[in-house]
Amino acid sequence: MQTLWANARVITGTLGVAPHPLDVLTEDGRIADIGVGLRGDRVVDCGGALMTPGLVDCHTHLVFGGDRAREFELRLEGAGYEQIAREGGGIASTVTATRALSEDDMVAQALPRLDALLAEGVTTIEVKSGYGLEIETELRMLRAARRLARARRVRVVTTWLAAHALPAGTTDRAAYIDDICIEGLNRAHAEGLVDAVDAFCEGIAFSTDELEPLFDRAADLGLPVKLHAEQLSRQGGCRLAARHGALSADHVEYAAASDAAAMARAGTVAVLLPGAFYTLRETRLPPVEAFREAGVPMALATDCNPGTSPLTSLLLTMNMGATLFRMTVPECLAGVTSVAAQALGLADVGVIAPGKTADFCLWNADSAAQLVARIGFNPLKYRVFAGEIA
Amino acid sequence: MQTLWANARVITGTLGVAPHPLDVLTEDGRIADIGVGLRGDRVVDCGGALMTPGLVDCHTHLVFGGDRAREFELRLEGAGYEQIAREGGGIASTVTATRALSEDDMVAQALPRLDALLAEGVTTIEVKSGYGLEIETELRMLRAARRLARARRVRVVTTWLAAHALPAGTTDRAAYIDDICIEGLNRAHAEGLVDAVDAFCEGIAFSTDELEPLFDRAADLGLPVKLHAEQLSRQGGCRLAARHGALSADHVEYAAASDAAAMARAGTVAVLLPGAFYTLRETRLPPVEAFREAGVPMALATDCNPGTSPLTSLLLTMNMGATLFRMTVPECLAGVTSVAAQALGLADVGVIAPGKTADFCLWNADSAAQLVARIGFNPLKYRVFAGEIA
Ligand SMILES: [Zn+2]
Ligand SMILES: [Zn+2]
Repeated sequence: MQTLWANARVITGTLGVAPHPLDVLTEDGRIADIGVGLRGDRVVDCGGALMTPGLVDCHTHLVFGGDRAREFELRLEGAGYEQIAREGGGIASTVTATRALSEDDMVAQALPRLDALLAEGVTTIEVKSGYGLEIETELRMLRAARRLARARRVRVVTTWLAAHALPAGTTDRAAYIDDICIEGLNRAHAEGLVDAVDAFCEGIAFSTDELEPLFDRAADLGLPVKLHAEQLSRQGGCRLAARHGALSADHVEYAAASDAAAMARAGTVAVLLPGAFYTLRETRLPPVEAFREAGVPMALATDCNPGTSPLTSLLLTMNMGATLFRMTVPECLAGVTSVAAQALGLADVGVIAPGKTADFCLWNADSAAQLVARIGFNPLKYRVFAGEIA
Repeated sequence: MQTLWANARVITGTLGVAPHPLDVLTEDGRIADIGVGLRGDRVVDCGGALMTPGLVDCHTHLVFGGDRAREFELRLEGAGYEQIAREGGGIASTVTATRALSEDDMVAQALPRLDALLAEGVTTIEVKSGYGLEIETELRMLRAARRLARARRVRVVTTWLAAHALPAGTTDRAAYIDDICIEGLNRAHAEGLVDAVDAFCEGIAFSTDELEPLFDRAADLGLPVKLHAEQLSRQGGCRLAARHGALSADHVEYAAASDAAAMARAGTVAVLLPGAFYTLRETRLPPVEAFREAGVPMALATDCNPGTSPLTSLLLTMNMGATLFRMTVPECLAGVTSVAAQALGLADVGVIAPGKTADFCLWNADSAAQLVARIGFNPLKYRVFAGEIA
């Protein structure tokens, strides 16, 4: 059946609002045509609402156990690192809580977070493993992520992130990469659980040298890579990512102009995560101007995680991208649509054009600027997933 | 009829969670009793949900015309003050758009913003005039504000803020205070539209000397005062407020320790507005430690307005109070409940205790910290207004 979405103010591929209302025709979950005076079997009058692509959250740690609210509270009371570790804070506490969860519980606990994102128009979400740090829990996290796409009308893209941190008590770092990260990746890939491979390249995590074998194995398996890079210091992660033709380098506050140039040559997207910047009260801004000059596309994502970015609003993420990082309105919107799709290697979402998947949003708004400027306000009218209001 | 709200984890007056589940009995819109094993005509099982007082947003400019999204967009593109003024930005554009609205339109345009706040548990909201800058529109704004309390189950406290800015083209500043601010106040008071009087004390607005007659007139009418003070520079607003026994001094980033001492003696609350701090990318933090030392209670509010704080989430405001201003979790919660009520001169809301109005929230959360730590997530289960789920 063909559905005609009539009388919408459509933000087309170039992210400008078309000058007059358009009709969008969908069929079999795809956009069949865009124009004026089209006809369809069923007609939905959009009433002049703003139509954007469905939003894409291209960097999340949505599946996890526990929460870190107590740690948040303690920090505000002046607690130091040791006291928080003693009271069970930090990523180690999330690993412990996540390992204790069944797959069912992982799904149940992730769903309210997912629902918050969907309520604001997200139609595609990336979900990473990385709180197991042993093979079984890492696999279970990705199985839970896959199940989210059956529990809700949303596309889920999964990422293998066993190289998120070194598990407490582990001393043989190379063995952790070989025996857990790579061996687990083989199993996850065999089970069809993995769409991409990620790692955390940082002084407190892994070095570029340590990650090379993991990225090489991803290439052997035909999996794209991405990297948490230059978040707290400049470690060469962007260059590693570019060398491996990564989909994205993420965080990248400490990236240099030469990193931007390497990313541009490799077609690597810069995924900016203002929720983490805000929560950690960072002051080092990502080099937005250098990315612009080098032609590196910038995406924006929630980085939804229990510790450093407990953020479940992609609209607020756009506002933070503008307010904190001084991205323009078109950059913010592209950052959660077309560029976010590019960061996931998806060619069929993130833009409104014939042939693309019919994932889009209708908003009670006149302009993209209204979506970005407001804080904590959700003007979503309809979320359309694969051609159906979802 | 008596209603028993059974099995709630109640945050009592001192803002700690009671160690075991309690029953709260309500009757005729009031809290009749709190205890264990109480009985009521009707029973609502709270299922162990967290119960806080209903949230109080004690500083908003909720009624206005137009929006400033285009200005937001232009600023990100590097536009300067002149270009924005030329394209109709700034408070002048809001004044023009607000003057053009009928009372019905003011209500209609404010309701989606109000609904966003109510969806997160707000039960009392303050609404200011201040975008008319001439008497009829100022009066119409407060009539619209009063009507919000009939359109929704919420208490609305109104504030006369004609002294918000000098209207474009006005040169006789004293005449504006006398003929518009004071004369309009007389009329608004006669019509029963005003609960308090506010002004903007700043280099770009009014001086303390200019505001004295307005505050004197408020005293004659038996109306409490409050003041936008020391937001962008130190102008003596806190001392003016304290001298007049003001309910609150608001923003107060530039307040000094001596201002805090004066406010403490006068019983004046510091209303902190992190949404404006965030939006304006201010770096001068309010003197939270000085307020603590002096014993000045701190409230938190959205400052919801179209330009400098287009914020409609009091949960996010709490997170900003913690993240940006380093307020503790109990301070943040008190800031949107008991202290916010104090800032409005209300003794019957903001705490859960026998005899108080039965305005409270039930949350899918274990602790107040979970309400404050998350960003863009709404765990509200029930909003209870005057003893009824609303
Ligand atoms: Zn991450
Ligand atoms: Zn204000």
